Amino acid sequence: MQVFDHVRASGRAARAEITRALGISPGSATAATADLIAGGFLREVEDQPRESGRGRPPVALEVVPTRAHVIGVKLTDERLSAVLTDFAGTHLCEAHRPTPGHRKGTDEMVADIAALIERLLADSGVSLDAVGAVGLGVPGMVDHETGTVAWSPLLSERHVALRAVLESELGRPVEVDNDTNMLTLAELWFGAGRENADFAVVTIEQGVGMGLVLSSRLFRGSQGMGLELGHTKVQLDGALCRCGQRGCLEAYLADYALAREAATALDRPSRNLQSAEALLETLYLRAKAGDTGAATIFRRAGRYLALGLANVVQLFDPTLIILSGQRMRYDYLYADEVLAEMQRLILSDGRAPPRVEIHAWGDDAWARGAAALALAATTERLLTAA
Amino acid sequence: MQVFDHVRASGRAARAEITRALGISPGSATAATADLIAGGFLREVEDQPRESGRGRPPVALEVVPTRAHVIGVKLTDERLSAVLTDFAGTHLCEAHRPTPGHRKGTDEMVADIAALIERLLADSGVSLDAVGAVGLGVPGMVDHETGTVAWSPLLSERHVALRAVLESELGRPVEVDNDTNMLTLAELWFGAGRENADFAVVTIEQGVGMGLVLSSRLFRGSQGMGLELGHTKVQLDGALCRCGQRGCLEAYLADYALAREAATALDRPSRNLQSAEALLETLYLRAKAGDTGAATIFRRAGRYLALGLANVVQLFDPTLIILSGQRMRYDYLYADEVLAEMQRLILSDGRAPPRVEIHAWGDDAWARGAAALALAATTERLLTAA
Repeated sequence: MQVFDHVRASGRAARAEITRALGISPGSATAATADLIAGGFLREVEDQPRESGRGRPPVALEVVPTRAHVIGVKLTDERLSAVLTDFAGTHLCEAHRPTPGHRKGTDEMVADIAALIERLLADSGVSLDAVGAVGLGVPGMVDHETGTVAWSPLLSERHVALRAVLESELGRPVEVDNDTNMLTLAELWFGAGRENADFAVVTIEQGVGMGLVLSSRLFRGSQGMGLELGHTKVQLDGALCRCGQRGCLEAYLADYALAREAATALDRPSRNLQSAEALLETLYLRAKAGDTGAATIFRRAGRYLALGLANVVQLFDPTLIILSGQRMRYDYLYADEVLAEMQRLILSDGRAPPRVEIHAWGDDAWARGAAALALAATTERLLTAA
Repeated sequence: MQVFDHVRASGRAARAEITRALGISPGSATAATADLIAGGFLREVEDQPRESGRGRPPVALEVVPTRAHVIGVKLTDERLSAVLTDFAGTHLCEAHRPTPGHRKGTDEMVADIAALIERLLADSGVSLDAVGAVGLGVPGMVDHETGTVAWSPLLSERHVALRAVLESELGRPVEVDNDTNMLTLAELWFGAGRENADFAVVTIEQGVGMGLVLSSRLFRGSQGMGLELGHTKVQLDGALCRCGQRGCLEAYLADYALAREAATALDRPSRNLQSAEALLETLYLRAKAGDTGAATIFRRAGRYLALGLANVVQLFDPTLIILSGQRMRYDYLYADEVLAEMQRLILSDGRAPPRVEIHAWGDDAWARGAAALALAATTERLLTAA
């Protein structure tokens, strides 16, 4: 399993490199890779020729992409997105489905997801039977072990056994996790994780999320439900959060927080039917055009982002923070002044502050993270059965 | 090393239990314990007779306490404390030394520590040569790897290579770490760690500190300088912290934060010469006697403690939080209403909130943690040399 994960994480890897990276004997590496090749999980390929050009090109190993397919699904309050990937995590096909913005009951949510998957499969020509697992990323508090959603801004009910309900609807294995954990898993497997063993991911969309990788493993908190950065309190008795509490970081930074001030800045009734996304787009254009009220909304959000990031640095001391999510299109949020403010808010120990990278991926990246989780589950099942 | 650590952590352990706990073969356990016995690190003792009383009593292993001595030192701005322990971590002797409350230069600090250690050794009749290592717990930002203090409220200078200076002064190996990490290490080795693989320690004294144990290991942050809970920001542009920034949790909760409001409540000049500790004692008695101004200071501090703890739960999701430090004598800080407020501030996922335990140990517990760090270093050195 470790050998397989290493090859998938690396894209391709030579046996000598596997031996070195995992600290196992050449004999163990050869035996493990032979089993994985026989089981149809890995295959040999010619590696890049060496610069010297001497001798025959060395042989490397890579994942057999056709061994299984998985589906990753990402939910937001405006649309559902799904991707189909092969066993190597390569994107094959995607589908989207707009959805009404109200909080949904479990039945409505499950029907939405099933319809989306049906279209994705129809578009790609892959049958449901060929799908190893479906991974689902849900904003909110999700217990990955049990597949239960304790609370989500998208669901009208609490403590929903979403995995069980979806498995019974689809007849395929389902994995459910917090959506930011899934995006972090996508970074670990296919992005920043290839270069970094420790990093944090902070996302800003309809909410504020966080994922953390420690020693190349996803850390979900001691009991599996930590990293709720969006619901850490940054002001006693502060702004109202959609979780029902006051002073959460999210209540100063997320879409809905900006949208409720946007109504004031744009002089529109707050019960406007425009979506938060469209409202923020208008607000952003106004700010760019020099509107003071609009600009101050983004500026304050930027200061709270700086505060949240400073707290992440103070507690987790990462070398790298990845900022992600659709809202990263608004450059106010990662302007030089935001990063400078973050640095000011960190109790300096003389070192450089952590590197901050902006990955403004779309919903597909999130869905790809969900696919990564489904891949992990499928791999474990296939390898255990092999 | 793992076998030795397991025996020390357990107090005493049978070979079968070691085999089970570490997942090693009985043969490996027998070989490792034989080496440790031959090296003078472990010894056999008769274990408690079995309840059934049949057969001869089973044999267990325990640490040879006389194998080495270590010293642990804890610094505060009012006194220095030191303990001498044996190789099993048992407290043998202690010494204290009052010190003026101003920030000190490195030379003054080192002279203070050397004088304290001299008295401790004189009192105990142990020679400096018999001391395996000295562990030093310092409040502030400490790089344990290099033994450098980047910032401490006790030092007038920044980036002090305290370990190197002390080693040259004492002629013995020195380990330096953040003091709350050391207290957490004491819990891991001699306290809560015997029952819990994951827990958080939050301390309130001259500052607010945090330590975290994940899978029975101390987590210091990805780069070794995280867990600075006291300097996470809980209000943008908030109260002034002694680190020079605004809105740190510590600035609402630590001794100095309460003391500066105490001057107002007690109607005394704020440049009063009374120590913060004495001022807080007076304030506490007034609050107990029904003084509204005094009571509201503790009540607000309690609410900020609740907020800080809620943030710890939201991010790290521990099963157990240990509250420690001298200030835990003030029951306002852990009154039922504080714990109830903590629970209200956590986005509920339907589970019970984490257990909160109060360990109102004195400075000796902190020093004992410093001794634990010195023990770890001494053990590693002796075992490597053996």
